[in-house]
Formats: sequence, C-alpha cells, structure tokens
Amino acid sequence: MRERELIESLEATFAAGRSAHVVRSIGDDAAVVRGRGYAVTSLDAMVDGIHFRSEQLSAEEIGHRALASAISDLAAMGADAGEAYLLLGLPRGTQPEQALGVARGAQELAERLDVSIVGGDITGASALTVSFTVVGWSEDPAQLIGRDGARPGDVVAVTGALGAAGAGLAVLDGRAAATGGHRDALVRSYARPEPRLAEGRALAAGGARAMIDLSDGLATDALHLAHSSGAMIELTLAALPLADGVAEVADALGLDPGAFAATAGEDYELCVCLAPEALDALDGVRLTRIGRVLEPPAGVSFTDASGQLSGYEHSF
Amino acid sequence: MRERELIESLEATFAAGRSAHVVRSIGDDAAVVRGRGYAVTSLDAMVDGIHFRSEQLSAEEIGHRALASAISDLAAMGADAGEAYLLLGLPRGTQPEQALGVARGAQELAERLDVSIVGGDITGASALTVSFTVVGWSEDPAQLIGRDGARPGDVVAVTGALGAAGAGLAVLDGRAAATGGHRDALVRSYARPEPRLAEGRALAAGGARAMIDLSDGLATDALHLAHSSGAMIELTLAALPLADGVAEVADALGLDPGAFAATAGEDYELCVCLAPEALDALDGVRLTRIGRVLEPPAGVSFTDASGQLSGYEHSF
Repeated sequence: MRERELIESLEATFAAGRSAHVVRSIGDDAAVVRGRGYAVTSLDAMVDGIHFRSEQLSAEEIGHRALASAISDLAAMGADAGEAYLLLGLPRGTQPEQALGVARGAQELAERLDVSIVGGDITGASALTVSFTVVGWSEDPAQLIGRDGARPGDVVAVTGALGAAGAGLAVLDGRAAATGGHRDALVRSYARPEPRLAEGRALAAGGARAMIDLSDGLATDALHLAHSSGAMIELTLAALPLADGVAEVADALGLDPGAFAATAGEDYELCVCLAPEALDALDGVRLTRIGRVLEPPAGVSFTDASGQLSGYEHSF
Repeated sequence: MRERELIESLEATFAAGRSAHVVRSIGDDAAVVRGRGYAVTSLDAMVDGIHFRSEQLSAEEIGHRALASAISDLAAMGADAGEAYLLLGLPRGTQPEQALGVARGAQELAERLDVSIVGGDITGASALTVSFTVVGWSEDPAQLIGRDGARPGDVVAVTGALGAAGAGLAVLDGRAAATGGHRDALVRSYARPEPRLAEGRALAAGGARAMIDLSDGLATDALHLAHSSGAMIELTLAALPLADGVAEVADALGLDPGAFAATAGEDYELCVCLAPEALDALDGVRLTRIGRVLEPPAGVSFTDASGQLSGYEHSF
C-alpha cells in the first residue's frame, strides 16, 4: 500500500458519522468547521515505549486510548467534544493494517461520542506516535471548569472507581495476576479508558468549582488542583473507591490498595471540588466523596481511616 | 532543569503578546479561546532526520520553520491565523536550552503574525519532533479557498519566487555552492520560510478559485489542485519566477533551473488559480502568471518556452 492509498483508506475510515458542522475536512489544506462560541482545545500525544507498549495493545486499543486521553481533558473542563485532528507517526516498516487499526479504534470511540476526526498529518517516526488535538465547544466560558476554583470548605469527589487501569497494566506487565473475571475488566480499563464527557458536563452544570481528569494519578492530579487553586487538598486514602480486583493486585505488589489507586494513574476518572450542598444535590453521576479543601498553603495531604495524617505532598 | 521548570519557561515564552480572545491557556486541562464563525484547522509535524536535520538548523529556526509550515496551510485557505498548539517531542538528553530555543523561534514568528501559542504537550521521543496544530478563523466559509475550484480558462499564478528553499538546502547539504550574497538569502529561505498569510487573504478576496501552498514542490502541489478540481493544469517551466541564486545552484546540480524550482519544494509560496480578469485586477500582491487551467483529464502538463509539451504528470 502506497502512502496515497493509506491516506485514502484513513479518509474513508474517518468519513463515517461526520457532523454537519464540518464544511471541509481531510483532502484540503485545512479543515473548516462551524464554531460555537468558545473553542476548548487540548493536545495529547502517546508514544510507543513511553506511554504504551505496542506489543501489549492492539492497534485499535492504541487508537482508542490516545483519543480517549485527549477527550478526557475536554471532559475535565465540562465541555462538549466536537472535532479531533490526528498526528500519526509511523516507524519504517509499519504495516498499513496497523495504521488503519489505530484509525479504526479511534473512529469507533469518536462516533460513539459524536466527535468528528477531520484532519491530521502522517509522518515517519522512530516509534509509533499517536497524537490527537481535540476541540470542544462552549457557548459560555463561565460554565467551563478550570483547575483554579477550589475553595476552602469544598468537598473533593471522584467519578467511577480508581486503580483499574494501573492494575490492568500490572497484569499486562506480568507484575501481578488477577483472578477470574477481574483480569479482563482491569486490562480493558487500561486499554480502552472511557472519557467521562457526560459526567464532566453534569458536574459543570451542577456547581463544580475545580476539576481535573486523572491521568497522572490522583496524588499528582490533586496537587495540580491544589497548586492552581492555592489551597490544601486533604484526601482520605481509605475513602477511595477501588475498582473490583484492584485490592488483590495491590496486595500482590505489596502495596496498600488506597496508595496504589492514588498513584497508579490513567484511570481518566474526574476529580472535582464543589460545595457540600452541590454534591448532595447532584443526581445521575456516580461520585464518591474522598476529601475536602482546606486553607493554604497549597498542597495535598493524606489521612488514614482514623483521620491521622499519613502523607503529604507539597506544592511544586 | 526539571520538566516542571521547562514547562514554566515555555509558558513564560508563549505568554507574550497573547490575544484578548484567549480566555484560558497553558496550565489548565485545555485552552479556551473565543471563536469567530468557522474554525480553519491544520496540523503539520516536523521530525528530525525526516523533515530537517538538527545539525543544519538552530533551535530557533526549527521552531520557526515548523510553525511557518503549519500556518502556510491557513494562508492557502485565505484564512486569518489565530492560535497554535505545540507538540514537542524531546529525545532523552535534550538540553532545555534547545527546547526553549524551538519555543522562542516559534514565538517570534507567532507574535509577528498575531498568532497566540496557547497549549500543547511535551513528550519523550526518539527524534526531536515539532508539530503544530494551527487554527484560523473566518466569518464566511464561502470566502475560504479550497483546492477544488479551478475551472478551465483560469490562469495559474504563484506568489514570490521559487526554488530558494531547495537551493538553500542544497547549499547546507554541501551539494552546491552559492556565490556572494545569495548564499545567506537562500539558506534563510530554507530555514525561516515566511507563510504568505496576507497574500492568501488578498487572493481570497480578489477572486481566487483554488489555492495551495507549495510545500512538496510546484509539480506535486499543482497535481493536488488538478486532482481536486478535476482539471488539467498546464505550466510553463520557463515562466517560473526564480529566486536570485537559484539558477546558479541548479546549474551546479546539473538541473534545468525551471525543473529544479518546480520540484525542490518547501518554498511555502502560494499557487493560485483564478480568472484572467481577476488576476489583472489584483493589486499589491507579487504574482507571476505561470500557466493555465484546461479541460480534464486531471493532471499537470509542462511546456517549454516555445509551447512544446515537455513533461506530463498524470493524476493519481
């Protein structure tokens, strides 16, 4: 397959389910898309050997995961997702089928989330590189949630359950085993994370003051919230909602399950700060209260089940 | 310098001259920018060893060139440029000063063109990778110029002069020498191409029917116009406007200067198709008439000075 044929196959893959907002797409110098108020844009790159290992994931999973990671940033703003632009870096000798697999995996997720992949670039690279620039839209920037609005008195909560992606990676790496039905679910959490777009919008509408997606891990990501908001975030490790099978994997690794879930990363759940009464009023989003926002200095502190301080990360 | 310090230095570099349209930028999950009608978006990646060689260019030139190449796609649509998002892939051991140099080179060009660099991602990479997603804006998509509007009877013209970047690269490669003052100008054309944003807007307003920027070289890029428009494009090699010093370099390489200029690429001039009367009425843009649009089949033909057919490239 020559480059031209590959591009045409990619174009055909991405043409399905394209939004009516798209005026021009792949095949011209630039894509043209009807905008709506404010553009919310994020860029996220995944490189083989750094962010994933291509022998552990199918091409479709690599494509899904890269797009999910980028869209997760839009979810953390409470934005609608609109379009995506793909940079695909292919090492010499890449089979066209692998490149198309990456595209198919991304496109499946895109269609499901009503996102149109409308442009990009293909280049040679030393390692498989999949980078998405994603654009969401909002009528009112005041309804978008940054990292900087947490206030003392707010509660801290997370969507979904934590630790699954990290446990799935440990299983793939052969560092731990998981029994029974948990194995597949954990690996899937790592391979095909689900960006929390609907949850992000619901939280933004429901009074979220600061929000971030959990890519680096709760401990680090909460520190970003604390730093941007100029506040102390106190988290209770024992309160973290663990995904099924995570405790078992953490045990096998000799780690405290809560500490494992707080540092493993790549869950792409949302961590949100909001007033206690806003949390109580929220409906339809699976949320677990995991801590509270205190006065500065900015930082993250961890307490154990009895309320004792068990750890502390200072602002950077 | 740790990653956090590098990010803060990049943030400081990009903060200068930021447009009032920018609501949120680097430091949150996503950038937020006030839009205007239609978003015009292109993505262009440059990888060390493929699109440039880092031993031939300064870090600033690498940054300038990558951003210029991406913005050139917006120029070819006749769009205004607005924002840019940077993916910076850094090999292990990259000096922070080199990463900052890339940022400074891009930022200098961005400020001059009123473009705000408002987001991005930094990752490890095997080879230095500089990729920009650029976004321009237009109130009316009917005023944007695609590749598909050329009609039989149109004339074909180019902005500026051709062959300089290719000749500059030949000089840097040691494949040819250039005498006197030409050397620096040729090398500069390769290292710091100037995207033709103002020319693109003027041509769009002045009746351009199809337009493309010359990145791959006129022969290939004209074929894209021909293919998209479903028309034959006839070019007269002898009519191509050569940059000073190009003929000398082509001679040294044993090539016909016109053929060299038509295939060397990376000039980032614009090639435009428009009605003869529109060309005559255009003012303030340096344009050279180099050919005409004929009936299908789609393809590009070359004639020599006497009008004889000297070459032919078929549609792909």
